[in-house]
Parts: sequence; C-alpha cells; structure tokens
Amino acid sequence: MTNQNLTDMPSLNLRRVAIDTYKENVAYLHRDCPIYRSEGFQALSKIEIHKVSNGAPVIAVLNVVDDENITAPDQLGLCEQVYDQLGVPEGTEVSICHATPAESLKSVHSKIAGERLNYQEYLGITQDIVNNRYSKIEIAAFLVGCAESGMEREEVLNLTRAMVDTGDRLNWGEFLVSDKHCIGGIPGNRTTMLIVPIVSAHGMLMPKTSSRAITSPAGTADTMEVLACVDHSPERLREIVQKERAFLVWGGTAKLAPADDILIAVERPLSMDSPGQLIASILAKKIAAGATHLLIDIPVGDTAKIRNHTDALKLRKIFEYVGEHMGLHLEVVITDGSQPIGHGVGPILETMDVMKVLENDPYAPLELREKALMLAGRIIEFDPDVRGGQGYVIARDILESGRALTKMNAIMDAQGRNTDPLTLGKLQHNVVATAKGTVKAIDNLKTASIARLAGAPMDKGAGVYLHKKVGDKVEIGEPLYTIYAEFNADFNFAIQASIKDPCYQIEGTGHVN
Amino acid sequence: MTNQNLTDMPSLNLRRVAIDTYKENVAYLHRDCPIYRSEGFQALSKIEIHKVSNGAPVIAVLNVVDDENITAPDQLGLCEQVYDQLGVPEGTEVSICHATPAESLKSVHSKIAGERLNYQEYLGITQDIVNNRYSKIEIAAFLVGCAESGMEREEVLNLTRAMVDTGDRLNWGEFLVSDKHCIGGIPGNRTTMLIVPIVSAHGMLMPKTSSRAITSPAGTADTMEVLACVDHSPERLREIVQKERAFLVWGGTAKLAPADDILIAVERPLSMDSPGQLIASILAKKIAAGATHLLIDIPVGDTAKIRNHTDALKLRKIFEYVGEHMGLHLEVVITDGSQPIGHGVGPILETMDVMKVLENDPYAPLELREKALMLAGRIIEFDPDVRGGQGYVIARDILESGRALTKMNAIMDAQGRNTDPLTLGKLQHNVVATAKGTVKAIDNLKTASIARLAGAPMDKGAGVYLHKKVGDKVEIGEPLYTIYAEFNADFNFAIQASIKDPCYQIEGTGHVN
Repeated sequence: MTNQNLTDMPSLNLRRVAIDTYKENVAYLHRDCPIYRSEGFQALSKIEIHKVSNGAPVIAVLNVVDDENITAPDQLGLCEQVYDQLGVPEGTEVSICHATPAESLKSVHSKIAGERLNYQEYLGITQDIVNNRYSKIEIAAFLVGCAESGMEREEVLNLTRAMVDTGDRLNWGEFLVSDKHCIGGIPGNRTTMLIVPIVSAHGMLMPKTSSRAITSPAGTADTMEVLACVDHSPERLREIVQKERAFLVWGGTAKLAPADDILIAVERPLSMDSPGQLIASILAKKIAAGATHLLIDIPVGDTAKIRNHTDALKLRKIFEYVGEHMGLHLEVVITDGSQPIGHGVGPILETMDVMKVLENDPYAPLELREKALMLAGRIIEFDPDVRGGQGYVIARDILESGRALTKMNAIMDAQGRNTDPLTLGKLQHNVVATAKGTVKAIDNLKTASIARLAGAPMDKGAGVYLHKKVGDKVEIGEPLYTIYAEFNADFNFAIQASIKDPCYQIEGTGHVN
Repeated sequence: MTNQNLTDMPSLNLRRVAIDTYKENVAYLHRDCPIYRSEGFQALSKIEIHKVSNGAPVIAVLNVVDDENITAPDQLGLCEQVYDQLGVPEGTEVSICHATPAESLKSVHSKIAGERLNYQEYLGITQDIVNNRYSKIEIAAFLVGCAESGMEREEVLNLTRAMVDTGDRLNWGEFLVSDKHCIGGIPGNRTTMLIVPIVSAHGMLMPKTSSRAITSPAGTADTMEVLACVDHSPERLREIVQKERAFLVWGGTAKLAPADDILIAVERPLSMDSPGQLIASILAKKIAAGATHLLIDIPVGDTAKIRNHTDALKLRKIFEYVGEHMGLHLEVVITDGSQPIGHGVGPILETMDVMKVLENDPYAPLELREKALMLAGRIIEFDPDVRGGQGYVIARDILESGRALTKMNAIMDAQGRNTDPLTLGKLQHNVVATAKGTVKAIDNLKTASIARLAGAPMDKGAGVYLHKKVGDKVEIGEPLYTIYAEFNADFNFAIQASIKDPCYQIEGTGHVN
C-alpha cells in the first residue's frame, strides 16, 4: 500500500515542434514514450507540463506521434505557442502529469443548466481561460451556454469585472480619457479614424486601441495599418500620447482583458456574438485600456446586428448599467445602420474614404463625414468646458480648417508611416444593375460577406467599392459595385457569392445582381 | 474581369504526418507553401482536400508548419485519420480550397436561439457531422445548444431518425430481436453480461452490441473484453449469432449511427449528457443494430444520473414516444440506483462479480444477481409464448441450472477467449472506516470517479472493490473499499480523490474516509 510522489515521474526532454495550432495548446508525445502508456495518457488527454525549475505549469492537449522526427520517445514536443509560454530552451527536462479538470467548469455546467453566475464564478472561469486551462470545446460550451440562456445584466457586470481583473489595466493619469466604440456590423463604418484626430486636435486625450476584424471585412486596426504601424510597446504608446494626445493602434499586444482574446478566437469560427459577451468584451477592453469616458455607437437596421429600436434600447440599458457600476462615464448613440457607410469596404478602400473626408475632398462620402462629426461632437461634449450641443460645430470647424488632417498626419508620423502604396486588388469585377430603378436597400451582411470572401481584411487591397447608395437612380448595365481581390480562389468565391446573394434591392424591380 | 476556375489551383503532394489527433481532422501546410499565403489560408481555416481522381473531398482544419521535416512547402500534410479517410498513397497530387461552412450550421444557430428543429434540419446536421464537416467546437456548440434549451420529444425523434438514416442498419431477419440498455451512472451495474446468456439460453435472439465507457469506469464492452474478443466483422457476428443466438461485442466498428460516435467524442471531454442526446444516442444505436424489442433500465437515486422518480417518468415518456414512432417495442424499468451494484468497479473486478453469479457462488453479489434476473425476466416476457409474470422464474431456473454459465462459455468460445489471467492492479490501497456505525450511503459518482482515476477502464485491473454496502455495520479501522491501480500517477490521483471526496456515509457519524 504505497503512496509515491508525483515528482517520482520520469522526465522528458523538451522539443519545439514547429507547428502553429492557433490558440489551442497542443503537446506531442511519441506512442512508444514509456510515460505515454504507463501513465494512461491518450490523445486529447489534458496534461500539465512542469519545469524542474518550478514556475507555473502549462496546460496542453495531447496529440500522439508515431514519427521520431517529430517527437522522439524520450521527448515532449510542444507546438510553437506552448513552447513560448513555457519559456525554457529545447532539451530542458520537464515532467508531465494528468491535468485536473479546471474547477470552474462546474460553473460552465451551471450556466448551461440555466443558472446565473456570480462574480466569483466568472472570475474562476476567466482565470482558468487566461491560464490556458480551457480547451477550445470547453470555451465553446461556455460561449454557447451564455448565449442560449442569456446573461442577466448583473452577470454581464460580473463577467466584465472578471475580465478586467484577470489582465493588466492602463492608467493615463488624467481625469478624462475619451474612447468610442461601435458594436459593429456596418461595413465601411470607419468613423474612428476621423474622430480620433478631431477629438485630439481639440486637445482631449484619446488613446485609441482597436481590434482587428473578427467577422467583418475590416477592423479599425486593419485599416489604420494601411497608413501606419499599429503595433507598439506600452512604453512607445506613452511617448506617442505625450506628444500627440492620441494614437490609433491595435490593442492585441497589451494584456488587456486577455480572456476576451481567447474567447474571440472561438467566437469567430463559431460566428457567435451574443449580447452579454458583446457588452462584456467591449467594456472590459475599454476599462482595461484606461478609458474614463466612452461613447458607444449602436447602428440599427434590417441587416445590422441590431434590427430594431427596442433591441437597441435594451442593449443601451445594459451598457449603461455595467458602465455605471464600473465607474465609467458612458453614453450610447443609436445610429442609422440601414446600409454600409461610405463607399469602400476593405482596409485600403476604407482608408481612401477616410482620407477624402480629412482632405475635405468634394467627393468624400457625405454620410461617413456627417456621422463622424456627430460622434466626435458628442465626445467633445465630454469636455466640461464645452456647452451641450456645441460639440458638432467644434468638430466641423476642426475638420474644415484642416486641423484634423494635420493631426492625423502627426499621429501617422508618430506611429511610423506605412510607405506601401495604396494598391487595390488586381482582380476586379463589376456587378451591374439588371433593371432600371432606385436603390431601395443595400444588405450589410451580404456586402460584408462578399468583401471578406474577396480577401479582406487579410488582403488589404481586397473588398467592395459601392458606386450606388440607397436612393440613387440606376440604369440597366450600370455598375452597382466593384469587387477587388488579390487571388483567384477568393475572387471566384466573392463573385459566386454576389451571384447567389445579391446585395442590392432596386425599387419596383425586386432583387438584382 | 476574369473568372478563373477553381481547378486551376496548383496541386500539392500528399504526405502522411504521423500524428494522431483523435477525432479532429487536421491538415498541415508549410508557412512558405505558395498556396498558403496566396490563397489567404490561415491556421484554423477549414479546407477541402480534393483528389485529382475525384471522389468526395475531405474536410480538415489547418495547422501551419514551420519545419520542412514535418511538411515541406510543396506538400500537404495529413494527420493519420485524414490520411486514412482520403485513401490514396503518399505523393499523390491533391488540391485544396477553402471549405464553405457547413450549411447545417444555420440550424445549430437556430437551436442556440431556442428554436425547434425538424427532421430535415437534424438530418442536415448529422450528415455534415458524419462527413467530417463539423469541427470539434461546432459539435460542442450543437451539443450545448441542445442541452440548454432542451429538446422537444418530437425533436428527439427527429434526431434519432436522422442518426439512424445517416448510417448502416442491421437486419437479423427475425421478428423478435431483443436488446437492453441501462442509461448508466451506476458503477458495477454489469447486468448485461448475465442477461445475454440467460435470455439466449431461453432461445431468444440477443445480438448485443455495447459501448466502451464514456464517462464511467467501465462499459460492457470494456468488461466483456476481459473474457473474450469483442471486436468482430459483421460477417463474423452473423456466424456467432447463428450458432449461439447471441453475442456480447463492441458496437464501434459497425457504421451504426456513426454521428453518435463523433458526438460522444466531444461529449466525453465536456462531461455532457443531456436527456435529448442521451435518448437519441441510445435508440439510434439500438434501432440501427436491428433491435425490435428493447428494455431500458433507468436507475434512480441521489447520486444516479436521474435523481427522482418524476424525472425518471419524464424520461420514460420520451423513450416510449420515440420508440413507438420508430416502430420499436420498448419497455422501461425504473430501478434502484441508490448505490453501486455488486462489489467490483472496473473491468476485471466487475468480471469477477459476474462470473460468481453465473457460477452460483454463495459469495456472489446478491443485488447484481437479483437485478439481472428481474431484467432478464422482463425480456423473456417479450416472448409471446411466455405468460406475463413468468419471466423471472424462467430466468432464475436458467441461472441456477447452470445453463446460463454454459451459454456464457459458449459465447466466449465463439468470440474467442481472452487468455490473459484476471490480474488486479498491483498497487492497492485500503480506505478504512474512521468511525463505527452503519453504512448509510455510497456515492455512485465519487465511486466512479475514484475508479476512473485509478485507471479504469483503460487499465483492466484498476478500479475499486467495495467491501461494505448500504446497511452493513462497520468498525473503526475496517476496510470500506480497496483501490486497485496499475500505475503510480493514477494511484496517487485516486487516493487523493478518496481523501478529498469520501464515498461512504456512516450513520450517526457523518462522512468518513
């Protein structure tokens, strides 16, 4: 009746296996590894990897290898990201054992059973997620669990707080740090790249971290990257802010609400975006990024994320509830989401729209300009010295005077300009009207889908350019939009999608291609 | 404005990558592969792999490789199971393209939104699952979606029918093909290995396919494997049935409701087992296996899967509803699930219990014997020539006369005896009473968990032997149960669990170890 210690376990030599498994931790063990059989491991077992030098163990899912060139019987192979997490060189001795299931999975099962979770339970879940204790399927179970029974506003608050508390939190040392966020779903809606220069030209602090596209053809970070580097160290960001009062960068490098990034990596392939997760994801990132004053844009339209005003109001209430309890000054604007904003959809095409507005080009898309001015005006009114209702005029003055363009150039210089020319995808295809009439509707989802299939946001020059907007008259054979793509497979997928799912509705004549 | 064909895509040379990824299809592409970047693939992209010789494409998730020894830039690496699915040799030219998302994922999203799905929708889902079009996280989303909002009985019928219709179906050419199934959750409940010899000794047809353990310390297939080979071709199974009127084998090799096996591979690590999935899983397998008459055992107890009589009745109604609409004669027995059945928990320990009953050993566990006789009796009453209420007596007579043992030996001979000796785990640890009193309760879940941690069912000799059952008197220091394990890590996990979560409750003194 023995009771041997776990540290008796034989050790393995670490080996880096040059496989990128995206966000899932995978470890490789040879089928003939003495430990593999003797300890009853099997493929998909979760294991804990321990360094002899101590330090927190790393959790990974096991794949079994039958080739010594990948992992020999005396080795433990680690995919690239697990190797990086462990942070010790190849050949280092490590030991492994069965990972005990994450304690917080009990809370996930409670949630699936329809129960409400408290702060401690959400904290347990986010901690385990951040520590890579959840497999992808466990994350999927958590997301679907939250989506299906829904989250009470108290739960959204709990999850938001838990996500903030399991990451870093920036402090800009000022009383008013402004930020804005659109809940998304409207292609071409690139107002942030106008608002940031306008608001910071007014003198307000606006250190803007944005995401890359999740399910859309372009995120602000993808689009800004066309003009300047968006990937900076925290130290560099402080220097830029000191000089320019603003930046427009990707928020992914900082450890702000890191649980959110891991959740998003599963939400994306699942096409999940439930209200509770949406709100917690947005607010946790903003609060962790140090925002004190936040403007939320909720576009409403038949093909937007939010289809009617009632749903938008419901969402607003939860945003306000969570914002208030997290000590955030938060305002919600409900905007017109009935069609894409501007003409371009895709990083370079959107950049062109933005630059035209900043340059006061007479051909600049009017509704992009007006929406950006309205939102910038609301943020400027966060300034205690600005009277309610005066924000829009101040914003317009900053734009028309060229100060917004000057500020944008200064921000681009500070972040490091991208000198690549703005080259659109070399494969181009016009989709033309097959009937005469007036454009009645343009489908946001289908437009976004075609632009994504064409290669956006990965291919910066890919996307869709809308020649006609709602209310415009069209003749038979007149181009409605142009598809831009870089590569054949994408191009064909996009064209096939445009044939299958026309984006445009022309009044009196029904759907056309 | 070109429109090139997808078949223009450059081809890759197939390579088998000797990695076992369990049930997820993974393909490997080198980061420098010209197609990788040019076609906008990325890690976790789903791709379709096409043979030049045509045939159905195979779907896989992409991992990106940075080592030519695993996959060179002109190669497409496939994990072992994808390689087997594609069925062509290494070096064969294949092409790849983006996989379009499975159409039926729309139905999964409907289910998550709380809608009911019809037969066509469940058929679409099961077809896509069987064709490997679902990733693990998509399967998890489907399972959680069904678990959370629940499934109407009509939906359970639809899913059952869809699972049967997407696989093979056996036909034994007789009017009465009997089968039984326990919904599980009770350790040691190995009645099947007694019922099959008794019922077939009565002359009835009972071709019994069983599963391996999913979340339990032993399935019937795991336990029967201790005595005989349980893995046979369909042709061999027909020969055995012709001779013995019965067999006791693993159902996994036949393509019976194959969607179920893929679902279970995700249910297991998620510890999910929702009523709708449970019923569809059981009935689809039984119907596909050719059963015409089925007895379902639902044990009820505080630590069983079903906690009270009301829930058991609800479950029974759905079983009956689906059974009737699938043309199955089905009866449900609600049994005592208040503690483990018999003494042994784990393949060899349970086999020893079973053999004692068959041998009419005076030390055979009484409640295992009585339960098996009761259930066998109910099945014998499916025989139109047996009067209602006479089954038990017939079953007992068959057992006591030794005909059941003779039949079991004949079945073992027909399937091929396993000549390995019945060796229990060499590591043994007694858990003793720390107080005097009467055993009030034995926790099924904790008993199962300790037996699993000890290595069951993978290590046949691992598990738990219960010396005391509910109602027994115990003295301080008297052994309550013995843990058997083969390997140190498992042994320690099991002991630690027995310290943390005592299985036994002793009357008057509370919990003890």
